[in-house]
Amino acid sequence: MEERQTEISQLGEFGLIRHLTQGLESRNASTHKGVGDDAAVLSYPETDVLVTTDLLLEGVHFDLTYVPLKHLGYKSAIVNFSDIVAMGGTPRQITVSLGVSSRFTVEHLEQLYAGIRLACEDYSVDLVGGDTSASRQGLVISITCIGDVEKGQAIPRSGAKETDLICVSGDLGAAYMGLQLLEREKAASAGQKDFQPDFSGKEYLVQRQLKPEARADIIKQLKEAGIKPTSMMDISDGLSSELMHICEESKCGCRVYEDRIPIDYQTALMAEELNMNLVTAALNGGEDYELLFTVPLTDHEKMEKMPGVKVIGYITKPELGAALVTRDGQEMTLKAQGWNSLA
Amino acid sequence: MEERQTEISQLGEFGLIRHLTQGLESRNASTHKGVGDDAAVLSYPETDVLVTTDLLLEGVHFDLTYVPLKHLGYKSAIVNFSDIVAMGGTPRQITVSLGVSSRFTVEHLEQLYAGIRLACEDYSVDLVGGDTSASRQGLVISITCIGDVEKGQAIPRSGAKETDLICVSGDLGAAYMGLQLLEREKAASAGQKDFQPDFSGKEYLVQRQLKPEARADIIKQLKEAGIKPTSMMDISDGLSSELMHICEESKCGCRVYEDRIPIDYQTALMAEELNMNLVTAALNGGEDYELLFTVPLTDHEKMEKMPGVKVIGYITKPELGAALVTRDGQEMTLKAQGWNSLA
Repeated sequence: MEERQTEISQLGEFGLIRHLTQGLESRNASTHKGVGDDAAVLSYPETDVLVTTDLLLEGVHFDLTYVPLKHLGYKSAIVNFSDIVAMGGTPRQITVSLGVSSRFTVEHLEQLYAGIRLACEDYSVDLVGGDTSASRQGLVISITCIGDVEKGQAIPRSGAKETDLICVSGDLGAAYMGLQLLEREKAASAGQKDFQPDFSGKEYLVQRQLKPEARADIIKQLKEAGIKPTSMMDISDGLSSELMHICEESKCGCRVYEDRIPIDYQTALMAEELNMNLVTAALNGGEDYELLFTVPLTDHEKMEKMPGVKVIGYITKPELGAALVTRDGQEMTLKAQGWNSLA
Repeated sequence: MEERQTEISQLGEFGLIRHLTQGLESRNASTHKGVGDDAAVLSYPETDVLVTTDLLLEGVHFDLTYVPLKHLGYKSAIVNFSDIVAMGGTPRQITVSLGVSSRFTVEHLEQLYAGIRLACEDYSVDLVGGDTSASRQGLVISITCIGDVEKGQAIPRSGAKETDLICVSGDLGAAYMGLQLLEREKAASAGQKDFQPDFSGKEYLVQRQLKPEARADIIKQLKEAGIKPTSMMDISDGLSSELMHICEESKCGCRVYEDRIPIDYQTALMAEELNMNLVTAALNGGEDYELLFTVPLTDHEKMEKMPGVKVIGYITKPELGAALVTRDGQEMTLKAQGWNSLA
């Protein structure tokens, strides 16, 4: 079966935007006017407004040889939702700007938008604007997300206090191992036509890399349990790096226990297969988009009972620094070795 | 004198953002928390919120051989402010995402940020967030602007009514002629060291191309005169193209008079020098960032008295189409020949 291939120039910028955004319906009361004017019109009389933005560049943040465009669209939206969630908020609107080089067709962009639309549907977010232009430099995706949070209730990075418990949702290192696996299969496929990558028994790792989720469910769970985190962020660059942000912003130290870091068994098996240090992967592998947060010590019992969340350590005085306590009781100073495209 | 050149990798992503955003002070009551967390925290209890975004790519939207980085920073911010102004609003916050290839140094980004900061200062806008990452090819600038407007008072493209007067601010075609001039000097300088471009007598054209302004002053003037435009947009792609947007969105036609289109004498001289059609340049040359708007016929007298604004035509029934009335009284159907990177 031959794929349809429509040149973008057949539609032009406005025709293309109309085509990609047709049939959008508003899901949020705060969305007054979406795509189609100089600016979107929103209304937030009762809440604080959250704004975050992420720029994703081909060859730096994603590799289209193994990332399907629909997944890329989904993930591009999710990483922004995750930043809003990490403030304790709810994502409500996004704008999507694309730079597209001439090798992309209308059908390619339809796939990308199918992923963006699916994410918007899953999280009840409205696509309210954007910008599409030619690019000389591959695919460029810039998404801005607007969300809301109860007045004065945004959870900062800076609120952690001595004796607070450090918690993470889900498990860590899987997205990084998924990336290693995809890179390995890419290398193995080089020059081979009809190469079939083998992901059996490793589906979770691939899914964590290609289709991450924003943990809005955890925010809901915490609210229902009456727990108000003192600080929070999402783990995009790696646990170590994010812990150090919280310590720096909150002017504190921390102790995190190696044996408490949640790791899925597929992640552990893959690390062994690749002869990589599992704890290093869990500490420094990014893109899990789990939540890292602190709660007062008095919430200890509630936290221990909460599903999908684990207490991994506690906040200390600043002079004690940030350290990992290994299985054999040794303290190792944490380093931010997380992903950094500019390093 | 040797220029300082600091590699970006010496600072890393977080060090770089800290360096570029240091000393920022909040100018707007709606800015609660700026750079340094997962998302900015804003508050807009009394007004509607406007959001717009623009993506600028090296080699497509700008050419660094003749655009100084400081000017580029200024213009990147202004084009976003202009979209907020074109809704009748006031720009309040921006986020800035950059993709930078390895040929850029910290000092380059300082220059770019100096321009962005100057625009923010001139228009009392807060820089509240962003994202900086490596790029494999060239400079990528993505800016999102948030602004406010009185509840329900955003001026859409869709409100023009039959007999409304069509108005524009300032003059048209100068930014386009400035671009032609800069391109000519670039071609002339090819291969020559120490080439000195000659812009004498053409400073206005160069300024219009390199340092445009958002016409917030016109919005203020209209408000003070008690005039409420029925539709409005900014002229970024060319008068013809924007008029057709208003006609399409407002389901109307229009007549615009050739001899009423405001053109500066430097623009006219340059068109003659380059042997280009002046009216075509004024109709289709983009990037003037002037305001195109419609007002009820009853405001005719007020509009004729208002400085810096010109009535250029009127809105008709849709079946009459969109046309230019030439000096000799002929009607020529308007075509959107404005700039379109995807055409």
